Amino acid sequence: MRKSDGIFLGVDLGGTNIEAAAVRDGRVLASKKINTKASKSAKAVIKRVEKAVRSVMKKTNAQPGDFKAICIGAPGAVELETGVVNSAPNLGWNDVPLAAKLQKRLGIPVFVDNDVNIGTAGEYAYGAGQGADHMIGVFVGTGIGGGVIINGELHYGSRGAAGEIGHMVVVPDGRDCGCGKRGCVEAYASKTGMLKILQEKIGQGRKSFLAEQVTKKGHLVLSSKQIEDALNSGDELMTEVIKDAQFYLALMTANLVNVLDPEVIVFGGGMVEQLGESFIKPIRETAREYYLQQAGAERVQILPGTLGDHAGPIGAAVIAQQRLELS
Amino acid sequence: MRKSDGIFLGVDLGGTNIEAAAVRDGRVLASKKINTKASKSAKAVIKRVEKAVRSVMKKTNAQPGDFKAICIGAPGAVELETGVVNSAPNLGWNDVPLAAKLQKRLGIPVFVDNDVNIGTAGEYAYGAGQGADHMIGVFVGTGIGGGVIINGELHYGSRGAAGEIGHMVVVPDGRDCGCGKRGCVEAYASKTGMLKILQEKIGQGRKSFLAEQVTKKGHLVLSSKQIEDALNSGDELMTEVIKDAQFYLALMTANLVNVLDPEVIVFGGGMVEQLGESFIKPIRETAREYYLQQAGAERVQILPGTLGDHAGPIGAAVIAQQRLELS
Repeated sequence: MRKSDGIFLGVDLGGTNIEAAAVRDGRVLASKKINTKASKSAKAVIKRVEKAVRSVMKKTNAQPGDFKAICIGAPGAVELETGVVNSAPNLGWNDVPLAAKLQKRLGIPVFVDNDVNIGTAGEYAYGAGQGADHMIGVFVGTGIGGGVIINGELHYGSRGAAGEIGHMVVVPDGRDCGCGKRGCVEAYASKTGMLKILQEKIGQGRKSFLAEQVTKKGHLVLSSKQIEDALNSGDELMTEVIKDAQFYLALMTANLVNVLDPEVIVFGGGMVEQLGESFIKPIRETAREYYLQQAGAERVQILPGTLGDHAGPIGAAVIAQQRLELS
Repeated sequence: MRKSDGIFLGVDLGGTNIEAAAVRDGRVLASKKINTKASKSAKAVIKRVEKAVRSVMKKTNAQPGDFKAICIGAPGAVELETGVVNSAPNLGWNDVPLAAKLQKRLGIPVFVDNDVNIGTAGEYAYGAGQGADHMIGVFVGTGIGGGVIINGELHYGSRGAAGEIGHMVVVPDGRDCGCGKRGCVEAYASKTGMLKILQEKIGQGRKSFLAEQVTKKGHLVLSSKQIEDALNSGDELMTEVIKDAQFYLALMTANLVNVLDPEVIVFGGGMVEQLGESFIKPIRETAREYYLQQAGAERVQILPGTLGDHAGPIGAAVIAQQRLELS
């Protein structure tokens, strides 16, 4: 990454939170996290993004002219050239011209990318992936998203659809996935997938400390903290479910290594932050057994991210700088 | 590909045959196919490569100075920088300095690559993959090999181990694969894998026109012709085995599309040449059902290769030219 001659703004626009940061050379000068209020209109959410960004700009005490560009990572399919968010189910968005709308409000160049790509770009430029030529970012949360870096650059693919590692089928005719297909790793190893498995098994009579929490009525979310607490209490069912999740994540990782042979695979997302090395270790060990080329296998690193929540905003700022230089 | 100012030589060194060609701008000026005699020493096999190459050079009626460089595709793990073949099980080779030995004999620059990479490079430069930014080559034969083109260039990975798509695990704890792991697509969809399945099923009492041929003693190989004949005769078991092979190849293809989103996946190898579109069609249809992003799915092409046996030698010649320009 070239030294920047200004400050770049990065925003991770999620279904739950908006996280904005002002970044110079990978250093977060100021950051702000606010609720997305995704149930409101796209216009209202875009106003909230503006609010978070203006708050961050103010906190830095920099001059308005110091802010060179901004990139927003949106949770869905985006058109890089136009900055239109084609589809973001968690926001209820279809074809929202995010970049154009926000650029009018903020008066600086606005770029848009995918939320997982910005996290991958962050970990690559300033986190666990630094120095690699090829890296894969794996983000385990509500879903499982991925970003692919080849020769130091994000790989978008021919339709901008690359990196959907969570929908790698690892079990033929396996569990139903939220995407409508069956057997995707996301159906086993995302928090959504694990919640469904827990609910089913508890419904079949299995005991679990989580029984009451995961079978309540209404919109349920399995939190990383709940998972950790259950594991720490020796909950048998949760331990079983996590082991399966790790096994399928290991198969997915090995499949990626056999196809792309990166130097490093960085795992991020809430669950990885919460559980840390104890979550990664079994994945690393099992994946390695499945590498076809064992020579140099010790050089393929499987690491937790180092930037935590800041991976997204930092990566978005990196992308803002790169795209501004190219524009 | 830049217009070349000379002739480049490409060799596909297989466990069974050596195929050499003299190539100018993707056009085969002359070619020669001889038996590898892989049971002989590495020295003897290298002499046979030289023999094939000299025969091709002679056939072209060109001047010795017209031949600028040569690239050999070897069936195994190679070191690109040194031209050493680290391991090629079908040849019984370990750490054979192929480039150095051959360069001494031929007096022109010799480069070495992997046999699947040369086939992919051939189909990309002059075959079914022309014009794409990103392409995946899938070669179905004794094993299943792959080559990955990203931004117009072969992707080798950090250890030169990329492209091992045949060892993508598609069935957890599935069938034993020749690589020592379980559930790889190669265990279901390669000719070796299918032969084993046929043998097992016939051993269990299933009937098949191939029963006698696949249960003889000694070293058996399932030929593409045998497969085609059995299918044409309506052999139930063979039909079942091919359907499974196609299903797992479709899952593999969809997984690759979801991760890399290439414009085109080119299928090559003996079986594809023999069975043609009837082999590819079910793979194309099933794979598409598993694409996460359905928008633009019709633009992702799954095609049979157009260069046949010449894909390897032509691709090797392309790589020879590229590497000479870089050297």
